[in-house]
Amino acid sequence: MPMQLRSDALKEKSKMYKLRSTLETLIPYTSETNPFPVTLNANEYPTDLPKEVKDVIIKKLTELNFNRYPLSDSSLRSKIAKEYGLQTENVFLGNGSSQILAALCYAFSDESSSIVYPTPSFSMYNIYAKLADRNGVGVELEEDFKFNPDKFLDVSKKENASLIILCNPNNPTGQVISNTDVEYIAKNSACPVILDEAYMEFYDESAIYLMSKYPNLAITRTFSKAYSLASARIGYILAAKEIITTLSKVLPPYNMNSLSLISAEVVWDMKDMFKERIAGIIAERGRVEKELEKINNFKIYPSQSNFILFKTKDRETTKLIFNKLKEKGIIVRDFSSHPLLNTCLRVTLGTKEENDLFITEISSF
Amino acid sequence: MPMQLRSDALKEKSKMYKLRSTLETLIPYTSETNPFPVTLNANEYPTDLPKEVKDVIIKKLTELNFNRYPLSDSSLRSKIAKEYGLQTENVFLGNGSSQILAALCYAFSDESSSIVYPTPSFSMYNIYAKLADRNGVGVELEEDFKFNPDKFLDVSKKENASLIILCNPNNPTGQVISNTDVEYIAKNSACPVILDEAYMEFYDESAIYLMSKYPNLAITRTFSKAYSLASARIGYILAAKEIITTLSKVLPPYNMNSLSLISAEVVWDMKDMFKERIAGIIAERGRVEKELEKINNFKIYPSQSNFILFKTKDRETTKLIFNKLKEKGIIVRDFSSHPLLNTCLRVTLGTKEENDLFITEISSF
Repeated sequence: MPMQLRSDALKEKSKMYKLRSTLETLIPYTSETNPFPVTLNANEYPTDLPKEVKDVIIKKLTELNFNRYPLSDSSLRSKIAKEYGLQTENVFLGNGSSQILAALCYAFSDESSSIVYPTPSFSMYNIYAKLADRNGVGVELEEDFKFNPDKFLDVSKKENASLIILCNPNNPTGQVISNTDVEYIAKNSACPVILDEAYMEFYDESAIYLMSKYPNLAITRTFSKAYSLASARIGYILAAKEIITTLSKVLPPYNMNSLSLISAEVVWDMKDMFKERIAGIIAERGRVEKELEKINNFKIYPSQSNFILFKTKDRETTKLIFNKLKEKGIIVRDFSSHPLLNTCLRVTLGTKEENDLFITEISSF
Repeated sequence: MPMQLRSDALKEKSKMYKLRSTLETLIPYTSETNPFPVTLNANEYPTDLPKEVKDVIIKKLTELNFNRYPLSDSSLRSKIAKEYGLQTENVFLGNGSSQILAALCYAFSDESSSIVYPTPSFSMYNIYAKLADRNGVGVELEEDFKFNPDKFLDVSKKENASLIILCNPNNPTGQVISNTDVEYIAKNSACPVILDEAYMEFYDESAIYLMSKYPNLAITRTFSKAYSLASARIGYILAAKEIITTLSKVLPPYNMNSLSLISAEVVWDMKDMFKERIAGIIAERGRVEKELEKINNFKIYPSQSNFILFKTKDRETTKLIFNKLKEKGIIVRDFSSHPLLNTCLRVTLGTKEENDLFITEISSF
């Protein structure tokens, strides 16, 4: 054991270091992740893995040699490839699809180009563009958060897009982009078009089939939402070999840990067991939407995902509802800093009991 | 399930994308990670976790809610801080200390500055500097890979260092830098000085005690070597709050997965159980060094780590030995592309039986 430091050591202001200029203005993403009795703010699946799945994971973890680095390649990659009729070289795993999106922003951009995505959408796209020292351009969605492909293409051309990111279904609006529009964007763009399908299991209209026609179209998926595996941080991308080769230069060796890889592979092998659970969330979505529509002065955005976005009368009301729910132990997502969303709240669909509690409380204010 | 793609889809050469220019010349790190009967190439601890430790990990993993994102803060951070007499704000966890080193290279550098480290040392420092679009400068070690602090400081000043990285004990040479030299570098540098102590458990002369005097000195450690946890990819840095705050801007939310965090925390709680194992490696180091010294034309670099670097007569001999060992199922590390190391091999200390096998085979050529 080393000698203990004085507990006030390192508090003194150190020298002014040379910092990457990007970091001076960067505001990190934050999310309340302290456990609440009813956690409806992070778009997770509301219950743990099916017991049968967890048992297999635990058995495999027991057999793992913890002392060894992960293998340079994972059998999960080839299994995913096979499922979609692709080659292993068309699949790449990441610590959440987030890490892959960050690496794409880093790699597919030069100083004269921009990274273009709709807004409002997943707020990390903007942060990833900034971290890559690049210009992130959010193209405003239309009335009721509808996607306008011509407007989007116009901006992406004007801004010299080197990378396009579309989230489908879109977080946090719950809206979708039709595959006709996805195809139109892919066809008319000279850069990689990344479709973030993190919530696709709740909509089931994947654009994967378009990839063979448009090699610039790549698709990211995750185990964190429908597959109850947010704890393990694992996602993947399906893409042309050229894109994967570039990603493998950016993401370091031993990027994935063995424990998460094992967990995700078991979930993948047993994914049929999740179908009913996903259908349950979709049924709850319809029910909660109907209940929310009964509340005066709320505007509900029809969702194809595992969450619902709704607009209240004004910012004051939004804050009031958020805080009252929090007092009752229910945490939802507030978007105070986003000009287009600061009168909106997003509620993740929980278990039937959690949703009942949410409806009861929100109806009572 | 989506319609399957033609298996030859996405093979066609896609458009020329705008790529970060750095990536055009970057050669990714590679390491043979396919399992060999005797794996002595990756500086791992040679056997799995103690059974008692693994049992606790498995029990805690069984209790984990796999569906939830990791908590924004881990109790492991505060435990590590407490052990060293630091505050939680002085500790930051990463997916291996590698990820932290990459983030430091990214953050603590501007366009006019350089990232400076000795060479030969851990080859990733150079790749991390490149990935940060920065100038990585390797200062050549002296005769027998000895560290010359004055020469190092001269170069770091001339090259306008914004970040210094020292590896102690040094990988792959096994040599050490004295704490007097560490202090001299920290005292006379205006930038953060990172001491990569990945192998410090095998030497036990940590410079942590110097941190309260030099807030620009920061120290990275890992669970991957002495603590038999390479599978989980987890490491940490001890640093002034200012450095940690910057890191937390670069590394995304939910950066760490819960499974690795749980595993590392259990290992930390039970780290007394590893003392005897570490002493065993140190004893084997002495024994294997003596055996290697008996072999004609080998030069052995005395090691303070869990591996031994030795020099053969010439490149031909190096290749021959590497291949013959491989044929026998024993994999060691070859450094074919490094001009100062291409007649050297590095062997990780394995179990007593593995070391015996290695000695027997290498003595027989």
